Amino acid sequence: LNERDIINLFSRSTGAKCRQLVQGIGDDCAVIRASGDRLWLVTMDTLMESIHFDSAWHPPDSLGRKSVAVNVSDIAAMGGRPAFAFLSLGLPQSFTPEWLDLFSRGLTEACRQYGCCLAGGDTVRSAGGIVITLTVIGEVASKQILYRRNARPGDDVWVSGTLGNAAAGLELCRRGKAGEKDAFPLVESHLSPAPRVDLASRLAASGMLHAMMDLSDGLATDLAHLCAQSNAGAVIYADLLPVSGLLQETARAMGIDGRRWALTGGEDYELLFTAPARNRKKIIGLAEEGTLSRIGCIDEKSGVRLAEGKPGKESQPLKDISYLGYDHFQSDA
Amino acid sequence: LNERDIINLFSRSTGAKCRQLVQGIGDDCAVIRASGDRLWLVTMDTLMESIHFDSAWHPPDSLGRKSVAVNVSDIAAMGGRPAFAFLSLGLPQSFTPEWLDLFSRGLTEACRQYGCCLAGGDTVRSAGGIVITLTVIGEVASKQILYRRNARPGDDVWVSGTLGNAAAGLELCRRGKAGEKDAFPLVESHLSPAPRVDLASRLAASGMLHAMMDLSDGLATDLAHLCAQSNAGAVIYADLLPVSGLLQETARAMGIDGRRWALTGGEDYELLFTAPARNRKKIIGLAEEGTLSRIGCIDEKSGVRLAEGKPGKESQPLKDISYLGYDHFQSDA
Repeated sequence: LNERDIINLFSRSTGAKCRQLVQGIGDDCAVIRASGDRLWLVTMDTLMESIHFDSAWHPPDSLGRKSVAVNVSDIAAMGGRPAFAFLSLGLPQSFTPEWLDLFSRGLTEACRQYGCCLAGGDTVRSAGGIVITLTVIGEVASKQILYRRNARPGDDVWVSGTLGNAAAGLELCRRGKAGEKDAFPLVESHLSPAPRVDLASRLAASGMLHAMMDLSDGLATDLAHLCAQSNAGAVIYADLLPVSGLLQETARAMGIDGRRWALTGGEDYELLFTAPARNRKKIIGLAEEGTLSRIGCIDEKSGVRLAEGKPGKESQPLKDISYLGYDHFQSDA
Repeated sequence: LNERDIINLFSRSTGAKCRQLVQGIGDDCAVIRASGDRLWLVTMDTLMESIHFDSAWHPPDSLGRKSVAVNVSDIAAMGGRPAFAFLSLGLPQSFTPEWLDLFSRGLTEACRQYGCCLAGGDTVRSAGGIVITLTVIGEVASKQILYRRNARPGDDVWVSGTLGNAAAGLELCRRGKAGEKDAFPLVESHLSPAPRVDLASRLAASGMLHAMMDLSDGLATDLAHLCAQSNAGAVIYADLLPVSGLLQETARAMGIDGRRWALTGGEDYELLFTAPARNRKKIIGLAEEGTLSRIGCIDEKSGVRLAEGKPGKESQPLKDISYLGYDHFQSDA
């Protein structure tokens, strides 16, 4: 069973009829009809010690901020704003009051920054490591919401920021090189990512997009989800992938293919979206220069295919990279 | 640090201002203003392997039902009805598809029974044991909601059902006696508790109650919370505690004080509520005969005090039993 199989198992029967449910399992958030033209967005993400973070190098305040950020990113990815957060915290016998104090400071600081309030939760003893689950509830106007499923053939495929930074930062931490000169931006991308709440809201409000989601499992996997839900495919161009100079240098120094980080590295919490080609110029104008990159286009085939080169100059054959990357329940696909 | 200290740590700063938040940390659920006279109730509870359940004896379908039930009980305790459930499931490397299939059947069956739909969540790998976190969102009319904080001196203290059954059932499981003749009702109380959704809703709709909560941490602890939040105290009478004959027999056979199970045993998921004495007869009429028991009264002192005997015939001195029982973060108080 891989993660998709498990999700399908629970999706086969969702229990009761869902009168107010606009969107259930399958997008960044569940969508619930609130009142008038307001929708509620609900998301839930867990960070497990030894799986998602290593306490040896993850400062507790960064971890507190990250646990909020990864959920807020899901709300942002549908065009919404976070409003309420709920925390379930599992603590092993060995936890210290100092760790907890710093963790709670980071968490409440992030809640304040993103405009959501910690409204409840649960604290339990863990027989394993630290377990952090947050549920975040957000809001969005119904005319502003963006789903994964509405990408259309001919759409441009866009991403925000540069890709692979969090994967590079994780590798630096693993190799004990997090403290090295210049490593900070990459390491910080892993330790305390910054979801694109304002940018996502502006993009959604523009009415110029067809589909949006956040990049949490890596471009190859996340774009494959978006394509599958839109009954479409995508071609992306290797030369258009936004990769920072710092990532390239770091990869070279480690003897690693930096492009693999950009294509399959998870946890960037950047935005992935599609929009009609006619909106290109206006979309570029919605963000600071260099923030948004057009990396390919949606077509009527299926799967995500990588082209070497640039549009019009791509070399054949294309390589299918759908779902390439990390699955928590299987070794590398 | 005990569990209350940890909750206080997170309560000291809840992040952003909470415009729509009617009730934050401190009751069975967070309460959010929805539209008109409707309120939303949000609760989140975690079941950890080796802490809250033992996979050696807990059938996966019962565990799936229980993970829904413990959350639904919080919604019911404020007078509401569950509507949506969100599941975060942490699975160790060793999980089997058979376990997962049964667990998901139990979970979706309980969702259907209680009228909530599974609308989203997260599935992750666990480096420790199985971790099950559910968030349940429910609804209640604003004039029907019941908080913990409104108990008043002179109120009767009531409970539903019989107390201590889940603690007795747990002890039977621990001693390998779960399969014994007649053990079933007690064991089932531990493995798959049945929250009082309909009864709670009827009690809340009657308008005759002042305060309500569910019994999850044991009467001595839960009533102490209710009293502290109401700036009041309570006396309960040993002879009025509803204890089943089966529990008494089981305790006797094990050489255990069955009353300790009734006073401090957790996870009964029965209702604890207070109401003015003038409503006694009408309240009795809201449930099947024998379901509701009046066990004491609220007064202007502080803490929960146990009286031997019956009202008017209690023997002095009273014993303070506030918070007696199980705290996940400390050994027995």
